[in-house]
Amino acid sequence: MLMKVVLLEYTQNPEKVCAVAALTTMKEGTPSEMIKEIDPENAKKRIQRVVGYGHYSIIEHANFTFSIEGISRACSHQLVRHRIASFTQQSQRYVKMDEIPFVVPPSIKKNKVAADLFNQNIKFLSESYKKLLELGITPEDARFILPNATKTNLVMTMNARELLHFFNLRCCNRAQWEIREMAWEMLYQVLDVSPALFETSGPKCIVEGICTEGKSSCGCYKLFEGKTIEERRLLVKDFYKQ
Amino acid sequence: MLMKVVLLEYTQNPEKVCAVAALTTMKEGTPSEMIKEIDPENAKKRIQRVVGYGHYSIIEHANFTFSIEGISRACSHQLVRHRIASFTQQSQRYVKMDEIPFVVPPSIKKNKVAADLFNQNIKFLSESYKKLLELGITPEDARFILPNATKTNLVMTMNARELLHFFNLRCCNRAQWEIREMAWEMLYQVLDVSPALFETSGPKCIVEGICTEGKSSCGCYKLFEGKTIEERRLLVKDFYKQ
Amino acid sequence: MLMKVVLLEYTQNPEKVCAVAALTTMKEGTPSEMIKEIDPENAKKRIQRVVGYGHYSIIEHANFTFSIEGISRACSHQLVRHRIASFTQQSQRYVKMDEIPFVVPPSIKKNKVAADLFNQNIKFLSESYKKLLELGITPEDARFILPNATKTNLVMTMNARELLHFFNLRCCNRAQWEIREMAWEMLYQVLDVSPALFETSGPKCIVEGICTEGKSSCGCYKLFEGKTIEERRLLVKDFYKQ
Amino acid sequence: MLMKVVLLEYTQNPEKVCAVAALTTMKEGTPSEMIKEIDPENAKKRIQRVVGYGHYSIIEHANFTFSIEGISRACSHQLVRHRIASFTQQSQRYVKMDEIPFVVPPSIKKNKVAADLFNQNIKFLSESYKKLLELGITPEDARFILPNATKTNLVMTMNARELLHFFNLRCCNRAQWEIREMAWEMLYQVLDVSPALFETSGPKCIVEGICTEGKSSCGCYKLFEGKTIEERRLLVKDFYKQ
Repeated sequence: MLMKVVLLEYTQNPEKVCAVAALTTMKEGTPSEMIKEIDPENAKKRIQRVVGYGHYSIIEHANFTFSIEGISRACSHQLVRHRIASFTQQSQRYVKMDEIPFVVPPSIKKNKVAADLFNQNIKFLSESYKKLLELGITPEDARFILPNATKTNLVMTMNARELLHFFNLRCCNRAQWEIREMAWEMLYQVLDVSPALFETSGPKCIVEGICTEGKSSCGCYKLFEGKTIEERRLLVKDFYKQ
Repeated sequence: MLMKVVLLEYTQNPEKVCAVAALTTMKEGTPSEMIKEIDPENAKKRIQRVVGYGHYSIIEHANFTFSIEGISRACSHQLVRHRIASFTQQSQRYVKMDEIPFVVPPSIKKNKVAADLFNQNIKFLSESYKKLLELGITPEDARFILPNATKTNLVMTMNARELLHFFNLRCCNRAQWEIREMAWEMLYQVLDVSPALFETSGPKCIVEGICTEGKSSCGCYKLFEGKTIEERRLLVKDFYKQ
Repeated sequence: MLMKVVLLEYTQNPEKVCAVAALTTMKEGTPSEMIKEIDPENAKKRIQRVVGYGHYSIIEHANFTFSIEGISRACSHQLVRHRIASFTQQSQRYVKMDEIPFVVPPSIKKNKVAADLFNQNIKFLSESYKKLLELGITPEDARFILPNATKTNLVMTMNARELLHFFNLRCCNRAQWEIREMAWEMLYQVLDVSPALFETSGPKCIVEGICTEGKSSCGCYKLFEGKTIEERRLLVKDFYKQ
Repeated sequence: MLMKVVLLEYTQNPEKVCAVAALTTMKEGTPSEMIKEIDPENAKKRIQRVVGYGHYSIIEHANFTFSIEGISRACSHQLVRHRIASFTQQSQRYVKMDEIPFVVPPSIKKNKVAADLFNQNIKFLSESYKKLLELGITPEDARFILPNATKTNLVMTMNARELLHFFNLRCCNRAQWEIREMAWEMLYQVLDVSPALFETSGPKCIVEGICTEGKSSCGCYKLFEGKTIEERRLLVKDFYKQ
């Protein structure tokens, strides 16, 4: 099974809420009246203008909760480093696993010798983990031999501002492949429910037109001229696969 | 017009989302499957148990966005000190006010001499503010003579965990009267849409059975024996009015 | 008396600590050994390289605590909106002020008619505040007539990463004049004790070479060609005074 | 080699800074004057009184930076979940390890059969990791077979308020043994440099006199009567070893 990303729930009417927040700064009217009157098209324009000035705080009012399933612990360790977010993760201290699911990196899958070696290790580890439990070792301590490849599930909530920042870093071709896959999947799902909030989202090259990766840059930004943002997004993703 | 608090929007199905987060830590199942299966009664029990152990992080997944209208700048200055929250506030730099609305503290309203003095000041200030604008002073600088009593509106988002903390501090009879009124109003509104998340919310005396205000304590906690939490909440509010 | 900004204390050896954090990501050695070996010049180079790649998290380990004295409550209301920081502010609920100190905006000082009006208001307010106290109104409620111009003191702690962000926003000529003055004062003080951490700090135009203020832009960035960062800083400050 | 915890640097004069913050809320004087006048004994008393009322924000001004060396990735994964803190961790994406150091849980060390099995696994994994690198797999992907037991180093900064919270959770006998060892080590080191800030620190049972672990409680709090806090601390640590 591959990684699965599901948008579980989110703040209802996220664009109206954020647009009304933007209006509140500039108007004498009350937010509770303004939210009744604003139409979706106006909400969209208001968000675009205010975010265009770099005033991202107004989009913090929209929150999105995801289920992230079947990612490796290597990936989740990076993910939980984002501090302006809420995480609840499957515990290896408490969950005694019957079968231990693993993520195999594509570079290993593609290399027959490496893949055999990897699978042997996984098999050996799984058996040893179970033996340790049989020997009376607690799951908390037996998990010390579980590898980074072990799959995990988590529930994660981020607001739209933090999501933009997350996509900025993690949709970049220089990010680890697994968190990058996850980030793009998240991006398309929130773009679907709230185009106004996420229409310009993506890696730094797309959003700011610059690359700060120096010598390690994938170089895709050089192909951007004359492209729409949607074309750029596809370009960035395809570029990496070449 | 009095202060108005309106719950604008919130994470849909907040109890299911938080309960599934709680389950995720302990189960092999995926959050996206578990959310389909869980019923409201089970969700409630799960939250109660996990929060009872002090594991509040699971309720961070539920976010609530309020419109706060007609509070004083004295109150909003305290409010925005809460850092695990998102605020968008009416700007005195940009909004050129035609009529300046004010909050009059009850203790001043009740005292005829004080009230007259207060109103004279307000009248003088309002006129001076307009004159400063006529003299070419920008709203940004003219607002320097606007008092703490000036009303403001804001949009605020907090998650359930931070709301519990907020109620803990601000529903206390020792909190400033205005932010306390606001906090109780918020409490009843979220309690209405999500009883499982907020059923034990309130000031420290109600939730923890203790008071840390020392000599300044209002003493209401001494009357709590044998009372339900709902009775305690009413008792705390009434106690102050005596 | 004018505003006063004093750097009270800070993390000792801030550059070494941040440089060792940077090394820790890339080396097998331990931080406690590396900090003994690193010399100031190497520390500086390491920080420059890592921050140049946009990896700002390493400079979060350096914290700076300021005393901010004699700013208006208008200014402090903006200041405390920065959430990745710690603030402790003089309370108007508890401090019963004998003489009420005020900030007069320069635009009002320069305008004789406006200044007279402003001062009359201040005098009237001060007297009324005292009368309210005499009438038995608590400081908590009497302060409702104190204006935004009232001076306040606070202690504030920010880490170097948040300071860069703060300078980015608040050293801009479009920021409110008072918080801008404060931000520049802070910038020069931390630059003095830790040049490696702050050498590229300043408003967005200086750091990123761009301006997102649209039609409201002061335009100073157009004069930047061929200038060093120190010259640009002086240019930005002088430009505004013209 | 065992885990090593080293307090690298911290805010100079942490108690004076926090005490002056406390004074600032209540006095007309300026922080920069008050810090010159306050003596250590007064600083201590001021902090004790204010923290006693539950006003923890004043101790956020004191920051402490630690080097944490030789903990397992199982432990670091828990550690980085604390969000009000700054972390810089050794990267398994970039550091190609020649020899892979591991943490062996005491429960496994004590069990001859388990220890043999564990060591076989570690040996097999280490060799496989190197073979994967030889086969051209990047460290980023080869690390997928590295286990939770793999050692890591990190630099961490927390303020005193967050440290109290951290000790509250992680010094508890119910916390994972490794993060608990780390937390106690940190506690004694900060207690040494700043007794006034940390004199009442420890697990919930010590600080609040209560235990919320329900049926899983270690029960040590039942032995607390008539004991000083220092005696309680030793009791908690010894109790677990029994």
